Amino acid sequence: MKRKIRMGMVGGGPGSFIGAAHRRAAGLDGLIALVAGCFSGDPAKSAQTGRELCLDPSRVYPDYRMMFAEEAKRPDRIDFVSIVTPNSSHFAIAMAALEAGFDVMCDKPMTTTLDEAKQLRDKVRETGRLFCLTHNYTAYPMVREARQLIAGGELGTVRKVVAEYPQGWLAEAVTPDNKQGLWRTDPAKAGRSCCMGDIGSHAANLTEYVTGLKITELCADLAAVVPGRRLDDDGTVLLRFDNGARGVLMASQVSVGEENALAIRVYGTKKALEWHQESPETLIVKSNTGDQQVLRRNWAGRGAKWSRLPAGHPEGFFEAFGNLYSDMARAIAAREAGEAYTSEFPTVDDGVRGMAFIASVLAGAASADKWYKMEA
Amino acid sequence: MKRKIRMGMVGGGPGSFIGAAHRRAAGLDGLIALVAGCFSGDPAKSAQTGRELCLDPSRVYPDYRMMFAEEAKRPDRIDFVSIVTPNSSHFAIAMAALEAGFDVMCDKPMTTTLDEAKQLRDKVRETGRLFCLTHNYTAYPMVREARQLIAGGELGTVRKVVAEYPQGWLAEAVTPDNKQGLWRTDPAKAGRSCCMGDIGSHAANLTEYVTGLKITELCADLAAVVPGRRLDDDGTVLLRFDNGARGVLMASQVSVGEENALAIRVYGTKKALEWHQESPETLIVKSNTGDQQVLRRNWAGRGAKWSRLPAGHPEGFFEAFGNLYSDMARAIAAREAGEAYTSEFPTVDDGVRGMAFIASVLAGAASADKWYKMEA
Amino acid sequence: MKRKIRMGMVGGGPGSFIGAAHRRAAGLDGLIALVAGCFSGDPAKSAQTGRELCLDPSRVYPDYRMMFAEEAKRPDRIDFVSIVTPNSSHFAIAMAALEAGFDVMCDKPMTTTLDEAKQLRDKVRETGRLFCLTHNYTAYPMVREARQLIAGGELGTVRKVVAEYPQGWLAEAVTPDNKQGLWRTDPAKAGRSCCMGDIGSHAANLTEYVTGLKITELCADLAAVVPGRRLDDDGTVLLRFDNGARGVLMASQVSVGEENALAIRVYGTKKALEWHQESPETLIVKSNTGDQQVLRRNWAGRGAKWSRLPAGHPEGFFEAFGNLYSDMARAIAAREAGEAYTSEFPTVDDGVRGMAFIASVLAGAASADKWYKMEA
Amino acid sequence: MKRKIRMGMVGGGPGSFIGAAHRRAAGLDGLIALVAGCFSGDPAKSAQTGRELCLDPSRVYPDYRMMFAEEAKRPDRIDFVSIVTPNSSHFAIAMAALEAGFDVMCDKPMTTTLDEAKQLRDKVRETGRLFCLTHNYTAYPMVREARQLIAGGELGTVRKVVAEYPQGWLAEAVTPDNKQGLWRTDPAKAGRSCCMGDIGSHAANLTEYVTGLKITELCADLAAVVPGRRLDDDGTVLLRFDNGARGVLMASQVSVGEENALAIRVYGTKKALEWHQESPETLIVKSNTGDQQVLRRNWAGRGAKWSRLPAGHPEGFFEAFGNLYSDMARAIAAREAGEAYTSEFPTVDDGVRGMAFIASVLAGAASADKWYKMEA
Repeated sequence: MKRKIRMGMVGGGPGSFIGAAHRRAAGLDGLIALVAGCFSGDPAKSAQTGRELCLDPSRVYPDYRMMFAEEAKRPDRIDFVSIVTPNSSHFAIAMAALEAGFDVMCDKPMTTTLDEAKQLRDKVRETGRLFCLTHNYTAYPMVREARQLIAGGELGTVRKVVAEYPQGWLAEAVTPDNKQGLWRTDPAKAGRSCCMGDIGSHAANLTEYVTGLKITELCADLAAVVPGRRLDDDGTVLLRFDNGARGVLMASQVSVGEENALAIRVYGTKKALEWHQESPETLIVKSNTGDQQVLRRNWAGRGAKWSRLPAGHPEGFFEAFGNLYSDMARAIAAREAGEAYTSEFPTVDDGVRGMAFIASVLAGAASADKWYKMEA
Repeated sequence: MKRKIRMGMVGGGPGSFIGAAHRRAAGLDGLIALVAGCFSGDPAKSAQTGRELCLDPSRVYPDYRMMFAEEAKRPDRIDFVSIVTPNSSHFAIAMAALEAGFDVMCDKPMTTTLDEAKQLRDKVRETGRLFCLTHNYTAYPMVREARQLIAGGELGTVRKVVAEYPQGWLAEAVTPDNKQGLWRTDPAKAGRSCCMGDIGSHAANLTEYVTGLKITELCADLAAVVPGRRLDDDGTVLLRFDNGARGVLMASQVSVGEENALAIRVYGTKKALEWHQESPETLIVKSNTGDQQVLRRNWAGRGAKWSRLPAGHPEGFFEAFGNLYSDMARAIAAREAGEAYTSEFPTVDDGVRGMAFIASVLAGAASADKWYKMEA
Repeated sequence: MKRKIRMGMVGGGPGSFIGAAHRRAAGLDGLIALVAGCFSGDPAKSAQTGRELCLDPSRVYPDYRMMFAEEAKRPDRIDFVSIVTPNSSHFAIAMAALEAGFDVMCDKPMTTTLDEAKQLRDKVRETGRLFCLTHNYTAYPMVREARQLIAGGELGTVRKVVAEYPQGWLAEAVTPDNKQGLWRTDPAKAGRSCCMGDIGSHAANLTEYVTGLKITELCADLAAVVPGRRLDDDGTVLLRFDNGARGVLMASQVSVGEENALAIRVYGTKKALEWHQESPETLIVKSNTGDQQVLRRNWAGRGAKWSRLPAGHPEGFFEAFGNLYSDMARAIAAREAGEAYTSEFPTVDDGVRGMAFIASVLAGAASADKWYKMEA
Repeated sequence: MKRKIRMGMVGGGPGSFIGAAHRRAAGLDGLIALVAGCFSGDPAKSAQTGRELCLDPSRVYPDYRMMFAEEAKRPDRIDFVSIVTPNSSHFAIAMAALEAGFDVMCDKPMTTTLDEAKQLRDKVRETGRLFCLTHNYTAYPMVREARQLIAGGELGTVRKVVAEYPQGWLAEAVTPDNKQGLWRTDPAKAGRSCCMGDIGSHAANLTEYVTGLKITELCADLAAVVPGRRLDDDGTVLLRFDNGARGVLMASQVSVGEENALAIRVYGTKKALEWHQESPETLIVKSNTGDQQVLRRNWAGRGAKWSRLPAGHPEGFFEAFGNLYSDMARAIAAREAGEAYTSEFPTVDDGVRGMAFIASVLAGAASADKWYKMEA
């Protein structure tokens, strides 16, 4: 690459977990420079984060619309916008960024309704900008390896999928100092779902990504387990896929003692595979006819394309996340250079799919009928 | 004990897996002597097994009714009958054994219908005999430790349970040499269910045993995945418990690569626990507030009551199974000695409960409504 | 087999751990009947154990010499003697049993000196009796599978071996109620070594068994870590093998928190393997060129020859131990039937080798020179 | 921090593994900007790496002495030098950097001889500059947690340590395209040791860091296993510590199938702990009296001080490495601001200690005496 790609961030002010994660991910490969930001709706807080990041104060903005307008005028304008605000504002910010001519990295869930998601998809198509939805878990090397194995027929026909995402951090009523917990359990900021929107959607995306299948029907059981909670904090969804396979998707934020235990098991006619996010370097492959295999990142060439370190030198969350950012940077650079480039990041279509999943789970959970057809 | 308790076996002839397992379990602690048997409906095969076991030929019978009649006359008559035949014959044999005055160890599922199960329960009450249903997995020391932890309030209130039992051995059509597979997939011998009857019922029993809760409602999705199969070989059941907790129960015989991966996770308001049958010596306890704990059999007194070896000297399947047999032997000896004794083995009531579960799952799976009330 | 093989036991009275283990192992496959015993040097204790085992009182002896003399006269005399006394008496009992015409199963270490071991070897050859030394850990199916893999050249040439056997149970001074600890730390009963004699010898035997190599030189560091202890409770030995390979053998009884963590890793020019006694059903095979493999007992035929249960139905310590006893029983039956039979149990030669190892470690540890030639 | 700390790098040109790792580590927290470099002794290669990193070409130097001279004149001069060249040049570059007034981050081993190490230590003291030796493995949060547990007396008195570092990547003769392998096995570039210098020194540093003990004597067995190799590629060292504890340190580069399996086990009088670099987020604590504990990064406050992500969001190699760089950046900023700051990074004294270890191991290995006193 001839130059560093320039990023502006919306959100990620004091106390933000995901904003800091995005920044580290963006910086990991030295391809991207964070040069502008509107880090909070509170101008003082935005400025504070700007100072902590040693940014040029003139490029730290009190309002994202102002950022887009001002940056658009500069010769060294930002190339893309990274959106890391609470869910309810993703839509408006992304629409504005696209309209201002910027490529977009957007945290998930993409919007709060399926209708907004479709509008955003149309806007992406209309503007021709690049749009990456940061379903970061699909960027782990061994998840991509899993997808390749299945696409290559190694498992035979997929018959059954078990996806799960248990966490325990919302097992009690949220206290006022828990900024993360407060907005996620607040319908005004998080949208109509907490658990399924926040983490169930990751599990659904992982499922469709790894298997290459599409969910067609589902049977959902959602619960607000903690007394007084207004959104779901636990749920299980039975799945049917477009090839006839069955699945189970479990998500929970009240599973005490669980950290961030996203996992997937896929059973085909010939082989099965298993991956656990908390041990992301390993992919287990089993069959009825041979010994179990443990595939390791960057060993025997596994996942090497998406690796930065030799096997046994643990990579983790930031590296997977960084794969998305670097992919975006390379896509922008290639476009500038007039070179062909095939990106692998999740797109606005994944976002539409995710919102359709959430909408379907909510509608299905509200129904006394067993099966609900997936929204399209 | 003053003398060895005498056992007669029905079933367990040439090629039987579970018969040999029962025999080893029965012999493990030196409390029980196998002295009689009707090992097959084919007299030649019954005799063959009798010879292999070095039994007195006069006590190897061609017919179980004859065994009960002849043994009843002997001064050294068998104390109890072990029933290890295919499911469809359990009922008749158990009824006959009870009526002949013998205590009974019966493999599960207890019968093929809920109605039979209730008749058998009534017969047990009427005769006053001891009846143990060999839900062997609940006899693992660390499963019993788990039950005690929950009963003692260590987990707080149980909110969620995930029970699973994946196997892969029936992932393809059964070949003629697979005796085990043939009868289990044959409605005439196995009853109305294969997967749920054979292993789903173990998972349900384990769930109620460990948590002390009762399933009240369920939502079932069953499948006959392998083309041409006439009974279910895979299924998932959403659960509601009598305290309002939710659960998921997955069972499968088409999960290629899986051996015998029965497992349970229980999440309470304070702590969670996790146990895996393939690593039965370990029980994991987690919470949101402290370090994860790994409880090990016979370490720091854990499960010592049901152990034969120090920690780190692996016990397994036979030892758990043996806990049931030795419990039965001690109960018989105590009765003979006029001593008080509290057995811990699963009883005919567990059998009724299991048949109610299977009946409810089958009915629920056939319904378009989401929830089905558990049969009582 | 036409009849059960008859066993007489010496040792294994009240409070004995290893005696009960031998009895369960002997009974596991229904091939052996315990019919006589001298369970303690204290006649009352011997009788007590005999009663607990429901033995014919006339065959429970106060003295092992009397047992051998009396049994030798009976038509239904015992076939073999199982010796499970403290180490210091193995030699005399085994010599007497052989001279009385009995086959012998002897716990290890075989004797307390290398000279005794050689005398015993000569006696075995002279009498032509069967002699099995119960190095039970080499009878685990996946250990035998490991041996076969190496013998078959799967690993290439062995270059390095790491064997370890950490336990924690002797980390503090032994209290008077700890019968096991008392005799093992008492030079008068255990011989000249505690840790190396008791468990280091298992690790050495496992090493030579699995690799097929012989230790030729060693460099030993022994310690009596606990204040006041008179025998070693911890040690490390550097090894050289007859093919030039190197090794490390660690044994410890003061490694707090460790249960019975015998393990071995073998590195060849092509592949490596790894086995852990506390997870005995699994053998890990690695290489530089392919994915890691997890070999499981009775999966894809692995170790099936020495298995009683399908994969995923855990076998453990008793089953491995039982492989030795059943092998002995089959060898006796084959001899009686005039049939050819190749036993796989460890023999008196393994016992001589073990005593040579202990003698060499003790001599090497006492030397200021780095390397000590292994006694032959 | 008011400004980003400016870094210049020596080494890390095309094909360098460790150079790229240092750069990512340095950039991880946004505290450090790489602004200058001499990436290769070959000016064209140095320039190529500079371009790839989007550096100002005028600050990409063909010679490190020129870099130090030119940078020293600039108002925006680099704050510190990162040295990531092959071992043999560390000494000269570090001396020059210190003399030019720069703080230094230096890869290990620090020098090729103990004498050089002492000279460098004297130079650091004379110049008063900051010097960090990148023993990155001790910067993992759970390693620091381990050190704190031991320092706080949780384990009681340490009695035994087992440290190991097996790798397999040098199991065959190095091919010409393996740049990493070539210089490490070449005495002219790597110094007098390959395996012990490269990775044994990490294990020794980890041992002393975690336990707080000092090695006082050792007994070493080194080997050049691969035919034709001129430096050690495998070795085991028995250890004695200043409190009387014993230890074993194993390092190998010919253990086929092993990735980067650095691990340590420490046994005290009360508890033991265990850590594995390939699963760095977990620290296992055991005792004889209670259940095993699994301590997880950022769970229940464990290691939170050195964490960037919640528990269950895997951190790895870069994050540990980054802890060293950010510590250096904060130390420089604090000095500039006149604030007190206590750094935790390894210093030139650790480097002297490491070279003393290597020198002692080499001398000890060459001796026929068992024990060798550690150089001071």
